Amino acid sequence: MIELGPNRYGKSAIRLVRIVRGAGRHEVRDVTVAISLEGDFEAAHVAGDNSAVVATDTMKNTVYALAGEHLRGPIEAFARALAGHFRAVSQVSVARVSIDEHGWSPIDVRGQAASDAFVRTGLLTRTALVAAGPDTETIEGGLRDLTVMKTTRSGFSGFPRDRYTTLAEVDDRILATRISAVWRYRDPDATADADFDRSFEAVRSTLLETFADHDSPSVQASIWIVGRAVLERHPEIDEIRMTLPNLHHWLVDLTPFGLDNRGEIFVATQEPYGLIEATVRRS
Amino acid sequence: MIELGPNRYGKSAIRLVRIVRGAGRHEVRDVTVAISLEGDFEAAHVAGDNSAVVATDTMKNTVYALAGEHLRGPIEAFARALAGHFRAVSQVSVARVSIDEHGWSPIDVRGQAASDAFVRTGLLTRTALVAAGPDTETIEGGLRDLTVMKTTRSGFSGFPRDRYTTLAEVDDRILATRISAVWRYRDPDATADADFDRSFEAVRSTLLETFADHDSPSVQASIWIVGRAVLERHPEIDEIRMTLPNLHHWLVDLTPFGLDNRGEIFVATQEPYGLIEATVRRS
Amino acid sequence: MIELGPNRYGKSAIRLVRIVRGAGRHEVRDVTVAISLEGDFEAAHVAGDNSAVVATDTMKNTVYALAGEHLRGPIEAFARALAGHFRAVSQVSVARVSIDEHGWSPIDVRGQAASDAFVRTGLLTRTALVAAGPDTETIEGGLRDLTVMKTTRSGFSGFPRDRYTTLAEVDDRILATRISAVWRYRDPDATADADFDRSFEAVRSTLLETFADHDSPSVQASIWIVGRAVLERHPEIDEIRMTLPNLHHWLVDLTPFGLDNRGEIFVATQEPYGLIEATVRRS
Amino acid sequence: MIELGPNRYGKSAIRLVRIVRGAGRHEVRDVTVAISLEGDFEAAHVAGDNSAVVATDTMKNTVYALAGEHLRGPIEAFARALAGHFRAVSQVSVARVSIDEHGWSPIDVRGQAASDAFVRTGLLTRTALVAAGPDTETIEGGLRDLTVMKTTRSGFSGFPRDRYTTLAEVDDRILATRISAVWRYRDPDATADADFDRSFEAVRSTLLETFADHDSPSVQASIWIVGRAVLERHPEIDEIRMTLPNLHHWLVDLTPFGLDNRGEIFVATQEPYGLIEATVRRS
Repeated sequence: MIELGPNRYGKSAIRLVRIVRGAGRHEVRDVTVAISLEGDFEAAHVAGDNSAVVATDTMKNTVYALAGEHLRGPIEAFARALAGHFRAVSQVSVARVSIDEHGWSPIDVRGQAASDAFVRTGLLTRTALVAAGPDTETIEGGLRDLTVMKTTRSGFSGFPRDRYTTLAEVDDRILATRISAVWRYRDPDATADADFDRSFEAVRSTLLETFADHDSPSVQASIWIVGRAVLERHPEIDEIRMTLPNLHHWLVDLTPFGLDNRGEIFVATQEPYGLIEATVRRS
Repeated sequence: MIELGPNRYGKSAIRLVRIVRGAGRHEVRDVTVAISLEGDFEAAHVAGDNSAVVATDTMKNTVYALAGEHLRGPIEAFARALAGHFRAVSQVSVARVSIDEHGWSPIDVRGQAASDAFVRTGLLTRTALVAAGPDTETIEGGLRDLTVMKTTRSGFSGFPRDRYTTLAEVDDRILATRISAVWRYRDPDATADADFDRSFEAVRSTLLETFADHDSPSVQASIWIVGRAVLERHPEIDEIRMTLPNLHHWLVDLTPFGLDNRGEIFVATQEPYGLIEATVRRS
Repeated sequence: MIELGPNRYGKSAIRLVRIVRGAGRHEVRDVTVAISLEGDFEAAHVAGDNSAVVATDTMKNTVYALAGEHLRGPIEAFARALAGHFRAVSQVSVARVSIDEHGWSPIDVRGQAASDAFVRTGLLTRTALVAAGPDTETIEGGLRDLTVMKTTRSGFSGFPRDRYTTLAEVDDRILATRISAVWRYRDPDATADADFDRSFEAVRSTLLETFADHDSPSVQASIWIVGRAVLERHPEIDEIRMTLPNLHHWLVDLTPFGLDNRGEIFVATQEPYGLIEATVRRS
Repeated sequence: MIELGPNRYGKSAIRLVRIVRGAGRHEVRDVTVAISLEGDFEAAHVAGDNSAVVATDTMKNTVYALAGEHLRGPIEAFARALAGHFRAVSQVSVARVSIDEHGWSPIDVRGQAASDAFVRTGLLTRTALVAAGPDTETIEGGLRDLTVMKTTRSGFSGFPRDRYTTLAEVDDRILATRISAVWRYRDPDATADADFDRSFEAVRSTLLETFADHDSPSVQASIWIVGRAVLERHPEIDEIRMTLPNLHHWLVDLTPFGLDNRGEIFVATQEPYGLIEATVRRS
């Protein structure tokens, strides 16, 4: 017997810019939204019956229609509004809404922030994910593409050696990575909108500070140290999942040219890369 | 209490080209390999103890070292060899190896296949994923980036309408998608190497033929029809998971220019896109 | 004194799919069009006077509006129609139209070509560029992203050595490249539409055959040999410009693992890459 | 007769990170270098004679070897050193060196700049291009991927209307673009290293301030206004070339949902886009 297994559908890459036109000062909100629904869509699959299929075009329209009222505060709030809207559809069991926010800052004009001109910041992308079921709601904040580097206080040694091991042990190397992190808020109902923004800023600072200010014996240790610090400092968060590629920088051998290379000149590489993933959580 | 949750690590984007130099004729194997290990790596995270951490550089070396003996047949066989190698490491509970194969064909020179010159085919990327635990082994074949289009025999109607619905019902539209599919082989031990290649070719044909030769009331129905056909025709497969973006093509309104558009002129779009995911399996 | 120098403007990335609905069989034309105009647009720049500025939105509309009548034959013909349209605008001195064509083939269904279902081929992108001035018209065909590899009959030796040279001379290496080529047709007015398609197919074959069937002492020599062959075999072409990245494949040193590597196992690299560009022309 | 026309070759995508390990504080320099040589390389092409062909691998080595001494100040200085090195090769007529610099900032740790940990800034990429001939040297600074937006003070009206024009005239729209700019320094020999950094910062400020603080009747006018301001304020610069895509943001029609859209909710698009290019120079 052949059956339909897990399935879901939705609309991705919904690009929305909102200009909040306050008195004397504009604000830019620039987001990419994805909606995904799980529920009873079996008839659509096996019988070609679309009577339960909310059109993905309707999802897109809903995003634009609800932005005016709900994209005022943090993206978590907008994601909750959207997830709540789609959860209310009877055949939906879980509505997932993920939002990426692209940052813009006012342009500095002779020391003053312009009121109506902006520059993309590009440091990172802030993310939110809300999953709403009939009686449950999970809210996650996050960020990705936060690219960081330690130029010392990082090593890698004591690892096992087998016949395929050629890597030398090093007590001082470059550690470069591009942080992706997603953290789950403990009690969504207790979290005010303002808190999501405050939490985001605080977690970002914790991630950066802890990354900067620890001695790293491995990426595995770093991911734990950074993740633990987030949970220690931010009681509103129950769990953080991180993905850290190890973006290798190899010391260039300059001896053929009669030159020393005292940890100065490196080749930055893209391929291959290490990839370390871990969850740190409250038990 | 703060604890380490699920974690894994490995090496990604290991790029390997093998030239099989047969008598009078070469063959090109071009693969990208990723290795990922789960197991007892807690000491590395929480204590900075690397004594259990197989270096990802060693993983890379292992891929190159084993290619000579094991990258002869299908990528599934190479993935099994690699996964078996890493599963044997005592602290590893699951070793995952995924391989993408990039196709090359001999160049046609006046009707003859060149023996030593090749062209990248680019139609799709073949994939394999092997997950090996102490007593288990899962083998999955797959493909991605197989971009296809139906120019008729596709519609979308009968869907619910709410205040945010503007999409018109259509009984004839373009359906374009980029197929990603992963299928799980039923009994790895019963599958000879040659069978993986034969299965791959057969499943690809089934995917293409079924896509071409059905009437589509929705992408959801298409994914079911195509997936069911794979299971019906290929008894060696127990489950197939597919992801189909709906790459919208919108009919251009030419009436402002005094022209008809009888289903001929479309704008191809990238953003936003529908995204339909489903598993079809034996029950 | 500050003045306006060379300038041009237009619309890029106009995505157009045409379904040609013939009796019993469809055809897919999938193109990306860019329009760029030079001419007397100084008032727009220096005086904010838009009275001469054909809106780029109008350019886009024109592409869709003219597709019905003019996107029937080769993309060169469609580019000529568009360039001719914009050249007729009085303030325009040169209208440039470039078109990329993305290939689709009918899906094979049990040995028969489907009449209404297609698969993206992905081997290469065909290109055309027409530049039309008041009394002149230049027509160029081309292709890009044709990725090819020679697994032998390629070497590189006899190059100068200085204090920064470490590369060994080799008489047998992999030569891999991604061909971009643009060729100029001699006499546009003498070229029938059908000839552009025939020329394209023929030049592509010449590029591939010549690449396959020569001994390469360097990429520089290969680019000349291939380009010269195009001019020798295709009298309708006056000039060909080619860009060939040298996509390095490095032999992996397997001796640390007690293994030989007799020209079999390579690491494919993306960065850095050689880049060789040359024009071959009739004098 | 068939002949070799214009040709050049070199190495691209040479990735180099330098850690300047000062007392108590590190600095990160992260650059991508490309070298390209023109000169008498005909024998390499037509006769397979490599005796004049500086290997591109040697170019790469040279970049790493010279970085220690020459990548201390602005990238223009490093590019000059490299171009001067290759210009000295007898068969070279022009050596071109282009450098992209990727910015890193010290991580802020509780209000203090970390001495050895950094974050990629991502606002823009700084560029330099030096072309050195036997008796000439051209030095250009620049930037790319500086993405900016005006939320008002931008319109587009008064453009000609033909049968394909549907765009409405607007006196208030979003103007979003991603600035690429290259400027040529007047007198390289009179420019001290420190001046390149100072000029870069100053030109970037001028670009941003002028973009923010003008009324834009068109992208063409904006490019002129911004370019002219650069020449007016920076006498060391003789010419600036800019490329500005018009990244369209379309007002969403919310009336089907019973909502107003008073210039608040936009869809950001990628395709198609306007493309405006102009040079502003001293006459």
